Amino acid sequence: MRIALDAMGGDFAPDVTVAGALEAVSEYDDIHVILTGDRQKITESLKNWRYPSERISIYHASEVVEMHESPTTALRRKKDSSIRKAVDLVKSGEADAAVSAGHSGVAMATALFVLGKLSNVDRPAIATMMPSLTGYFLLIDAGANVDCKPENLLEFAHMGNAYYKAIFDIPSPRIAMLSIGEEDTKGNELTKEAFKLLKNADLNFTGNIEGKDIFSGNADVIVCDGFIGNIVLKVSEGLAETIMKMLKHEIANVTTGKLGYIMIKPAIKNFKKRTDYSEYGGAPLLGISGTCIISHGRSSARAIKNAIRVAGEMAKKKVHEIIANALKEHCPFRTQTKDDLHSNREFEGQSPSKDISYVKS
Amino acid sequence: MRIALDAMGGDFAPDVTVAGALEAVSEYDDIHVILTGDRQKITESLKNWRYPSERISIYHASEVVEMHESPTTALRRKKDSSIRKAVDLVKSGEADAAVSAGHSGVAMATALFVLGKLSNVDRPAIATMMPSLTGYFLLIDAGANVDCKPENLLEFAHMGNAYYKAIFDIPSPRIAMLSIGEEDTKGNELTKEAFKLLKNADLNFTGNIEGKDIFSGNADVIVCDGFIGNIVLKVSEGLAETIMKMLKHEIANVTTGKLGYIMIKPAIKNFKKRTDYSEYGGAPLLGISGTCIISHGRSSARAIKNAIRVAGEMAKKKVHEIIANALKEHCPFRTQTKDDLHSNREFEGQSPSKDISYVKS
Repeated sequence: MRIALDAMGGDFAPDVTVAGALEAVSEYDDIHVILTGDRQKITESLKNWRYPSERISIYHASEVVEMHESPTTALRRKKDSSIRKAVDLVKSGEADAAVSAGHSGVAMATALFVLGKLSNVDRPAIATMMPSLTGYFLLIDAGANVDCKPENLLEFAHMGNAYYKAIFDIPSPRIAMLSIGEEDTKGNELTKEAFKLLKNADLNFTGNIEGKDIFSGNADVIVCDGFIGNIVLKVSEGLAETIMKMLKHEIANVTTGKLGYIMIKPAIKNFKKRTDYSEYGGAPLLGISGTCIISHGRSSARAIKNAIRVAGEMAKKKVHEIIANALKEHCPFRTQTKDDLHSNREFEGQSPSKDISYVKS
Repeated sequence: MRIALDAMGGDFAPDVTVAGALEAVSEYDDIHVILTGDRQKITESLKNWRYPSERISIYHASEVVEMHESPTTALRRKKDSSIRKAVDLVKSGEADAAVSAGHSGVAMATALFVLGKLSNVDRPAIATMMPSLTGYFLLIDAGANVDCKPENLLEFAHMGNAYYKAIFDIPSPRIAMLSIGEEDTKGNELTKEAFKLLKNADLNFTGNIEGKDIFSGNADVIVCDGFIGNIVLKVSEGLAETIMKMLKHEIANVTTGKLGYIMIKPAIKNFKKRTDYSEYGGAPLLGISGTCIISHGRSSARAIKNAIRVAGEMAKKKVHEIIANALKEHCPFRTQTKDDLHSNREFEGQSPSKDISYVKS
């Protein structure tokens, strides 16, 4: 699998992205990474390493999208950016998947604009893995669409279902919808309507799940709108950090704390490993015609390596085609409109926010 | 202050509610608790204790609202329930505030129905304290209103501001709105519109706050709709429990873990105390004509005691009048309508969900 990696994207690029790419090619024999970005900087960074050079190549891109830039501006003005080139390579068939740890809003917009939506998909969505007591669950949408219709939640459920089945080889993932009570009468207007659609869908829909239960391991795929999904993701990230800080502070304040901390340190390390986002590496944008993984801006080399692995797996299994087939079968209510046919051209001249909301992660 | 306590409400009632009431009267000289509920059961429970009997009284109520009952049914059919009687006592002036750890939806509906909304209030909201790195912040709305208009978020901000000022003697609390990015352009339709209102309001509005920053201590009052508020509250509760479980599991799995755990145990105890909801005891329903505190169903005696303390403080400071004045000054856009004037009568015959969404906590 040929993975186009936006080498300039992320807080520690290109050194960390290059290191991640090299870890990936060392670990996985079937991976070839195409680093997109400033050839000179990438070459400089590569100089520090020994690696199988036949599976690393560079595709020069003269521009870099900065974190403060808007997706619209980036799309319109930076057509030779490292992020754009990575996605362009997927479009032209020179790469099987793209990975970027750069500006996530720009990455989403670029993937959507260049690769386009799958037919029968109204809203592509970000699917992110989160740790639970028993393993991981998939949260969809984690931030692409802030205002949703009930049909969109159904679509997210089908996309999440198809993805989970394909990646984890689980025949019937348990799909739940995030709400404020288990009963179908509990929720807001959106979830109450979506509940009716999900209940009648060809899915293993287990009903609503409350916030306190999402980490229980009782659901494989948890569906919500992107505003809530992003807040849940960020609240969890913030709370986990806060708890660890508070615990450390309290431990430092008791006399036996320091020694005790040394003794439990390996356990804390294991806990961190188990809950580390880098184990999962990135979140795919599902519903587009191709494979694109959006990674955290703070991605470590390990996170980049894992994102490349997931991208390779998705491309190999042709997950986007599986999703297209699932939606064709289960959500055929959407037909191609004039808007869709002209979407690429129209996109150039207008704010893309109509299609995707570009949450900065 | 005379506090009417729903003695039959909560998972461990009446023993725990009675114990909480007795802790309150022992600790606070100016508190008198009126226990509403089954006189025989309450008397039985009181028998185990010595207490200042002149500051404990019983008001018999023949019915108890069960957790599975709907607010509408409870309001219509159980007019002699312990929860109803507690609120009735506030209405008649025989008590200064009501506290219930029973069915939170029923408690909210009863408070709203019996005491009514303050004029200029469109949607009463639940305000709950959550621990942060530096202390506590107030989350409003934590679950009363699942579908909101931008004006409602402004109203929540003013109510939270007035409450925080009155209770904590802080002249200018920092008010933030929960969203998916700090910029005013980040958010969903609701928050983007609400941002404009908050920016121009007579409040110390510090802008949007992201999920990852809510525990940072950078905001005193965090505003959001009740659907998201409830999810944030429950996700936090669930994640904190999950992290502690995972940590314990990992600690048990390393050889030096057990000894280390004994050494850090006092620190874990301090951490738990610092983050324990019972320190705060309950969440007031702001925006009604009177004082009503909704406590967690799992409330301990300590939580009940603290809820009684907060109820007493709110009643003493006449927080509901302060809120009424604040809204009259800052949100005068709402005038009394025919619906409001007849709301009590109409309420009897219809689902109260138009007014409040009765999240079960």
